[in-house]
Amino acid sequence: MDQNNWPKDVGIVAVEVYFPSQYVDQSELETFDGASTGKYTIGLGQSKMGFCSDREDINSLCLTVVQSLIEKNNISYNDIGRLEVGIDTTNACFGGTSALFNAINWIESSSWDGRYAMVVAGDIAVYATGNARCTGGAGAVAMLLGPNAPLVFHRGVRSIYMQHAYDFYKPDLSSEYPVVDGKLSVQCYVNALDKCYHMYKSKAKKMGISDNKSLVDSIDSFIFHSPYCKLVQKSFARLMLNDFWDDPDPDFANRYRGLEKYR
Amino acid sequence: MDQNNWPKDVGIVAVEVYFPSQYVDQSELETFDGASTGKYTIGLGQSKMGFCSDREDINSLCLTVVQSLIEKNNISYNDIGRLEVGIDTTNACFGGTSALFNAINWIESSSWDGRYAMVVAGDIAVYATGNARCTGGAGAVAMLLGPNAPLVFHRGVRSIYMQHAYDFYKPDLSSEYPVVDGKLSVQCYVNALDKCYHMYKSKAKKMGISDNKSLVDSIDSFIFHSPYCKLVQKSFARLMLNDFWDDPDPDFANRYRGLEKYR
Repeated sequence: MDQNNWPKDVGIVAVEVYFPSQYVDQSELETFDGASTGKYTIGLGQSKMGFCSDREDINSLCLTVVQSLIEKNNISYNDIGRLEVGIDTTNACFGGTSALFNAINWIESSSWDGRYAMVVAGDIAVYATGNARCTGGAGAVAMLLGPNAPLVFHRGVRSIYMQHAYDFYKPDLSSEYPVVDGKLSVQCYVNALDKCYHMYKSKAKKMGISDNKSLVDSIDSFIFHSPYCKLVQKSFARLMLNDFWDDPDPDFANRYRGLEKYR
Repeated sequence: MDQNNWPKDVGIVAVEVYFPSQYVDQSELETFDGASTGKYTIGLGQSKMGFCSDREDINSLCLTVVQSLIEKNNISYNDIGRLEVGIDTTNACFGGTSALFNAINWIESSSWDGRYAMVVAGDIAVYATGNARCTGGAGAVAMLLGPNAPLVFHRGVRSIYMQHAYDFYKPDLSSEYPVVDGKLSVQCYVNALDKCYHMYKSKAKKMGISDNKSLVDSIDSFIFHSPYCKLVQKSFARLMLNDFWDDPDPDFANRYRGLEKYR
């Protein structure tokens, strides 16, 4: 590789997703848990919670997507120069994202050997009885990364935020259940979202990608962390709220009607 | 950062190492284990095996080197843009090396934010009674990585080799002991060393760094994995053996005297 040039359009070349076919109906779980009707289905926006049979585990989930990705794209395992695995034993939910970023960095670095990187992320989320259990689930994804990709990772705008907090951790190694403070966890997430969105906006402006007061208008699609579906809706709304706060002269008559009290 | 230029001389800017002060004298361990005199001290080339008291664990070892590195180099935690931790729960002995390479890739990629990366690697190696126990130990290292470093990672020559083998693994999550096939593990290591050295030589030749038949002569210093000290000596000798095999016209009269039978 030319040491004075970055490879072009590094990103996701192909992707394969798998969820177990068994699931618990969330409205049945409401009844089973004695929760109010709609708490999980409307309140959290969920309908089905996937789970593994005794014929599946995190290894089989991950290997299923790896094999599919290789076979459907007609490539050989020898075409893969780097394998990154991010499962929830490493860095919880961020494990897969971290693996993805490491693989992108590899392709952009002098370590790159010209081959694809493969990123495998999977999780079987199981919680103890209580509020968090209904947000469980299981699934895996495998991604093929390389240059000239249809889904490109823009350079110079990526933003990361980390904070020291005990919202989600596994102090008991003999238990498969994490200790979760759900309310604090959502606060941490929303705070990180605010910080990352601000950093992203300021970098995008500096690089001339966007000078819109509202970045939301200039982007086609957003993807959010989905521990439960409702958080995705709330997160998108949160970006609008940030745009509103950043707007020196908000249009209260139309776009931001009724938001005066949040100023 | 200029997107068309790599940062210069990326490598280790500073390093801090820590070992526990308590140790088992390996000659006493020979007596205790009923092993022949010199088995550990001469055979494996070891004198002391460090261990932790009940006031220390892997977290305190790692935090000790992190704090030392920050304080001795008069920098702030805010000067660190990336933290990589490689302990033996991830990828065994390769965990620290993998963390180091990820950090270097980060600095060479568009993700780099201009700050240092810090890599922390540590291990408390404890084995069940048997052959492997005397190769235990404990320690941690923290490294500060950035451009314009005194210890530079050369580009385009780094070589990695991986193989699927059950020489060292942890099938029993409730035990702190790994399952080790020591003999197979050394075979795997030596095989990987041969492969990496060959790849390194061919890359170094291609990049004009070295066209020596024996690369050993043109390098000031070698660093090897040290599960026990004797393996380091054997590994260095192995490089010479590789050079000998690669030499189309070996000098049996001087340099390679007596090696005819290994041809």
